[in-house]
Amino acid sequence: MNWEQWFAERVAEREAAGLRRILKPRGADDPVIDLAGNDYLGLSTHPDVRRAAADAALTWGAGSGASRLVTGTLEVHQQLEEELAEFTGWPAALAFSTGYHANLSVVAALVGKGDLIVSDAHVHASLIDAARLSRAEVAVAAHNDAADVARILAANPGRRTLVLVESIYSVLGDAAPLRELADLCADHGALLVVDEAHGVGVVGDGGRGLVHAAGLAGHPNVVVTVTLSKALGAQGGVLLGPASFREHLVNAARPFIFDTGLAPASAAGALASLRHLRAHHDLPTVIRTRVTGLADLLGVEAPAGAVLSVPMPSPHAALAAQAACLAGGVRVACFRPPSVPDGISRLRITTNAGVDGADWKHACDLLARVCEEHR
Amino acid sequence: MNWEQWFAERVAEREAAGLRRILKPRGADDPVIDLAGNDYLGLSTHPDVRRAAADAALTWGAGSGASRLVTGTLEVHQQLEEELAEFTGWPAALAFSTGYHANLSVVAALVGKGDLIVSDAHVHASLIDAARLSRAEVAVAAHNDAADVARILAANPGRRTLVLVESIYSVLGDAAPLRELADLCADHGALLVVDEAHGVGVVGDGGRGLVHAAGLAGHPNVVVTVTLSKALGAQGGVLLGPASFREHLVNAARPFIFDTGLAPASAAGALASLRHLRAHHDLPTVIRTRVTGLADLLGVEAPAGAVLSVPMPSPHAALAAQAACLAGGVRVACFRPPSVPDGISRLRITTNAGVDGADWKHACDLLARVCEEHR
Repeated sequence: MNWEQWFAERVAEREAAGLRRILKPRGADDPVIDLAGNDYLGLSTHPDVRRAAADAALTWGAGSGASRLVTGTLEVHQQLEEELAEFTGWPAALAFSTGYHANLSVVAALVGKGDLIVSDAHVHASLIDAARLSRAEVAVAAHNDAADVARILAANPGRRTLVLVESIYSVLGDAAPLRELADLCADHGALLVVDEAHGVGVVGDGGRGLVHAAGLAGHPNVVVTVTLSKALGAQGGVLLGPASFREHLVNAARPFIFDTGLAPASAAGALASLRHLRAHHDLPTVIRTRVTGLADLLGVEAPAGAVLSVPMPSPHAALAAQAACLAGGVRVACFRPPSVPDGISRLRITTNAGVDGADWKHACDLLARVCEEHR
Repeated sequence: MNWEQWFAERVAEREAAGLRRILKPRGADDPVIDLAGNDYLGLSTHPDVRRAAADAALTWGAGSGASRLVTGTLEVHQQLEEELAEFTGWPAALAFSTGYHANLSVVAALVGKGDLIVSDAHVHASLIDAARLSRAEVAVAAHNDAADVARILAANPGRRTLVLVESIYSVLGDAAPLRELADLCADHGALLVVDEAHGVGVVGDGGRGLVHAAGLAGHPNVVVTVTLSKALGAQGGVLLGPASFREHLVNAARPFIFDTGLAPASAAGALASLRHLRAHHDLPTVIRTRVTGLADLLGVEAPAGAVLSVPMPSPHAALAAQAACLAGGVRVACFRPPSVPDGISRLRITTNAGVDGADWKHACDLLARVCEEHR
């Protein structure tokens, strides 16, 4: 076959379906107020965090130079792991070069052929890919439906089983019933894997996340993924659990073993963000105040996390509203089918605590006006 | 089940089998001469590369803040992609946050259920995982055996087929018969996916890699993975191919779409390494000179790339030799079963062009002595 033609046909198909997406590089001095990304606390550009990342590059070099088991484990990885474990209340942590690697690792290292994965219907692509990679049988549970999870667990007694959820879901912004799910897992001997990508830094005591807030840190039937590229402003992912869990991953997780260690600047940037968060216990409350205020203003329900999801009457209206925001100097994201679980187009607005007060007010006024026009 | 006990049992099993591996963090001022990592040109710690990575962290922040399709595409990504494509002779490039992501993406975005993957028996874990993730049928071809690939292709006419190889293999250090494989792929309409993790920066005109050296840059039946964390000293991976290939990946590759963009310091570090390489056309010849000289000294065959593989009489002898090197101030890696494809334990020695002349001489003398004692 002619591969170039095949690629071009795939692109043309997307174009015809109105689904073709392109990359738009942004400059360092982009004047637009960003309410589209996941830098929830604005820490990726905080002076202390920039400085820590830069110093790490100067001290250690641009890369870690090898896989973690060869010579790619640096003291800065160890510091990050120890301090993040302590902050979130877990005995041990292991850092990966992306959150995707962390999720692929935890699933594929714990279950395989013949085992069972119970996956919430809305989990992130990385967990879906992880389940596929593991070759375990996958049962999809209705979204945030603990009774459905209970039913599946009861129907599969004695099987090695993982239950995959996110603490806070990115698109709809709702929270998982973690306490109930952990109890179910304890009753059935299953392990609850909680992706805190949108939880840590955003919710819980001082940003310790929803697992901590639910009193589940250190629970024997729970392990956690933390993302370093969202509220912690850098790149990478971390798994939290017992020390034996960490050690098993070091020896068995292929996306850990066969990957170059996380770059020093990313590890140090995330560590500086974590330290900033510890020193500013109330920072996550800025998100809470902003998200409830904006939800009120727009007449939608406040989400559990930082991301406000505003349903729009059509994909066209969502796109037009997004364009109107951009024209007014505010970037928001837009979800349209097929990338929404329920087929409803939405604006996705990140209530970034790093945006200064005047900019935030301008953005809120603009959003209220635009939403009134387009809904 | 009791998960903590299960983890502990897995660790104990490895311990009993002599396979338990632990992480040893290194400091920034580690005095040991590193011939174990993959920083082949020593660029990760070159002053220009450190500075470029640090400046990027100061300019852009510690993270890109979002997925590439939202607001996580930065000008520095675009520059890196354009300059790397131009350097290697391809129309287009797309950067990923790890080489693993690049390999998962290229395979899973191009083939699926019912399609065919012909995989060399020695390919990297990331390509094996990619093949599994894609759900295509996998046929393993004997290592570097073009006739075996031809046989499999001939037995599967008309199927959408990828052939997965590395240009230079990490453990044995041998090179793939790329010209022959590309011709076979052209004859059968298959696509050759070449992982240049150990090729770019190391071999070919000015470090342009083995695909370029074989006259295959831009070949309609070839695409390429380049790693940013080895000779280019940073973190990440890049796919090279036609512009339509890049655009298809942007729209279809889940490990690209659902991942935060590569951290600015890593992108800028890799770009600075690339520019350094362009300005120092002869840098890769240092590797060539060193690797042939050391191979002569140790009485083994010189490899195609930077990594010298020295067979040892037993796993015990390999470990003892590695320890003797470390005692003499030189870190080398050691491969033992089950992580060697042929069951033979080896020392793995990276002929790092960044090690200064006196240190290199010390390392060679030490290696000659240690190998004489332990082989």
